[in-house]
Amino acid sequence: MKLPWPTKQPAAKDVPRGFRFSAAACGLRRTGGLDLALITSDTPASAAAVFTQNLVQAAPVVLSRSNVRANASRMSAIIVNAGNANCCTGAEGMRASQQTTAQLARAIGCDAGQIVVCSTGVIGVPLRVEKILRALPELVPAQSSAAEAFSRVTHAIMTTDTRPKWAAARVRINGIEVRLLGCAKGAGMIHPHMATLLAFVVTDAAIAPALLRRALREVTARTFNCVSVDGDTSTNDTLAVFANGSSGVRIAAHPSRQKRPGRVGHPQTAFRLFARALEEVCRSLAMQIAADGEGAKRLVEIHVRGARSERDAKRAAETIATSPLVKTALAGADPNWGRILAAAGRSGVRFDPARASIWLAGVKVFSRGRPLPMDEQAVSRKMDQSFVPIVVDLGVRRPSPLTPSPSSRIWTCDFTHDYVTINASYRT
Amino acid sequence: MKLPWPTKQPAAKDVPRGFRFSAAACGLRRTGGLDLALITSDTPASAAAVFTQNLVQAAPVVLSRSNVRANASRMSAIIVNAGNANCCTGAEGMRASQQTTAQLARAIGCDAGQIVVCSTGVIGVPLRVEKILRALPELVPAQSSAAEAFSRVTHAIMTTDTRPKWAAARVRINGIEVRLLGCAKGAGMIHPHMATLLAFVVTDAAIAPALLRRALREVTARTFNCVSVDGDTSTNDTLAVFANGSSGVRIAAHPSRQKRPGRVGHPQTAFRLFARALEEVCRSLAMQIAADGEGAKRLVEIHVRGARSERDAKRAAETIATSPLVKTALAGADPNWGRILAAAGRSGVRFDPARASIWLAGVKVFSRGRPLPMDEQAVSRKMDQSFVPIVVDLGVRRPSPLTPSPSSRIWTCDFTHDYVTINASYRT
Repeated sequence: MKLPWPTKQPAAKDVPRGFRFSAAACGLRRTGGLDLALITSDTPASAAAVFTQNLVQAAPVVLSRSNVRANASRMSAIIVNAGNANCCTGAEGMRASQQTTAQLARAIGCDAGQIVVCSTGVIGVPLRVEKILRALPELVPAQSSAAEAFSRVTHAIMTTDTRPKWAAARVRINGIEVRLLGCAKGAGMIHPHMATLLAFVVTDAAIAPALLRRALREVTARTFNCVSVDGDTSTNDTLAVFANGSSGVRIAAHPSRQKRPGRVGHPQTAFRLFARALEEVCRSLAMQIAADGEGAKRLVEIHVRGARSERDAKRAAETIATSPLVKTALAGADPNWGRILAAAGRSGVRFDPARASIWLAGVKVFSRGRPLPMDEQAVSRKMDQSFVPIVVDLGVRRPSPLTPSPSSRIWTCDFTHDYVTINASYRT
Repeated sequence: MKLPWPTKQPAAKDVPRGFRFSAAACGLRRTGGLDLALITSDTPASAAAVFTQNLVQAAPVVLSRSNVRANASRMSAIIVNAGNANCCTGAEGMRASQQTTAQLARAIGCDAGQIVVCSTGVIGVPLRVEKILRALPELVPAQSSAAEAFSRVTHAIMTTDTRPKWAAARVRINGIEVRLLGCAKGAGMIHPHMATLLAFVVTDAAIAPALLRRALREVTARTFNCVSVDGDTSTNDTLAVFANGSSGVRIAAHPSRQKRPGRVGHPQTAFRLFARALEEVCRSLAMQIAADGEGAKRLVEIHVRGARSERDAKRAAETIATSPLVKTALAGADPNWGRILAAAGRSGVRFDPARASIWLAGVKVFSRGRPLPMDEQAVSRKMDQSFVPIVVDLGVRRPSPLTPSPSSRIWTCDFTHDYVTINASYRT
């Protein structure tokens, strides 16, 4: 299977019009290297964002949420630092985030409230904000709309990611090309180890904030909320989308909202086309994050179908995807369907194991309650790949020719020695 | 801290009267060695049992549950094999368990329905029941009430456990000594890897099945249900208690059931004394299982207090105890309180992180929302022990002089390279 992410560098044609990018090394990253990134829109942009649901939230999450709420129709910039998560840092931490947005606002000519600020890295250690502030006079003038500048941003936000993550989509709406470009950093942890997921998507579509929020909500449920590296959610997770309208293409509300009687299915409205392109970008980023999970050797797709409901399917898939027994077996390319069945069995979802079936890397190994004879070595070889699809049919609902059975897909990775090494090593 | 388990071999004084034990090597274990165990009561015993709540249940679980339900006041024997879990083995698997109980019943002179049968080991592979049946003529006559025979049982039920697990308690009730003796096998996995928890307790107390069930339910909630090795529950988990009355001490109902007005607290009734002794045995076995989790270097106690309710406390403690980030940090003796706080934060329990506090191995590292300055190396040394207590005060409820705040304790272990090695190695 061709994995849905770019193998090349981003090109000029991938970059939405009216955005500029910049990155700098401000000294927060112990190893040196880029650790400060800036994304700006030339004109005020519509914005939508989702943040961690962890009760423990870093100062930049609290500030950014409030900024996007207040100024969703006129956001200007995203600033991100790596090396320190600015979390559990008290009132001082909030002051650091506020100083960052205030000083950046002066430098680029907007209100402090028009800025999303993100931090990733060590938690519980005061953020030396003066390092960020000192770097702004270099960071701001270096802004460029070149694809290369965007590439530098993808590098600056990395922590223990082994590679930068980006994705682009172009879609013709009303004859005009709309571009979407996104980047992400994954559940890598750094000194001292906090997983953070950050993702940013910019587009030159024109779309009202409420509609953008709707698209993002829909898409997140099917992409970023379907990724599990280790089941831990961070204090800093942030996903933000900026749409500045530079393409001149306005995305209108979906006609299904207009309640035309007798209408069936989703027509190719501008909204649907846009949402699909956004989903493409977000799915690619989400799968890249799972594939680059700490210590991961393989991306694993857990597809549960034949459930009573989508909710049930998701619950079973999540339980399988976070089972250490399943994930260590995957590290060893072990066709251990018993662990998968047992994880589904303890997920709280009702099904009859005697009607369930399981496929590992395309090979049916368990059929309606019975193990099938298999060549274990051959199945193991098929599992010893960078992408391993697993299908579990719970056998509760049968698909009909018109409707598939309720199903859910989760992306995860295997659990390796390297995961333990990365996360167990004592900090000093 | 002195860990609550025996460091010596069981002695004659630990063995409840009227029970006999036997073990044999029937050839199911690939490495040879004891793999078949028998516990019998000389007189019909009251029994109570709890079984896995996994939807996927092995044939012996289904049969034993039905037997205990039907004959709770007159159970006779427990037979256990290691080497094959007899799970996902269809109608043939059920026949194998039935043949085992039928033939054992003939050999020891009871009904097949008076027997608890357990299996642990590989799943999805037919059980070669003829090996068990062939061994019965050796197993049955070898029965003995000697402590050494009980020791052989503790060895025969092991899978990847690194040591046998047993615990005993003696309690004087109405001037007569009542004995309780238990053994367990832990969440070890074998070819091909199914965690199974098996535990058996025998006592010479006389107690009605309904009352024994009540004691077991209470005790299980505070002991075996407070253990997490990797969050996965097995298809074969079984905990059974047999009480044969040989001591002549009858355990009557708790007087609180008799609704005497004005009575405060728990008087030292026979029931309370018995339940406490049962709890002592079960807690020791549960903690031994956590301490001997696969690859574990340390036993970790997660004590969450200051919660709104016990339910909240347990939920937060469970989330912390199953977090791979927390468990790998523990393997590295890393005083990484941020991961503990973040795990509590995503547990779904409401609390204000600004009022929370955390102690690692007795050292307060986070106090009402603020990191405390700490000597990381010194705290790490304190954590680099075989027992690590962690206390998290959520700060929602303060204890009063009379009532402690709602709290919960969970025992778990660290997550090491060896865990991955044991569980990732391909079977062939």
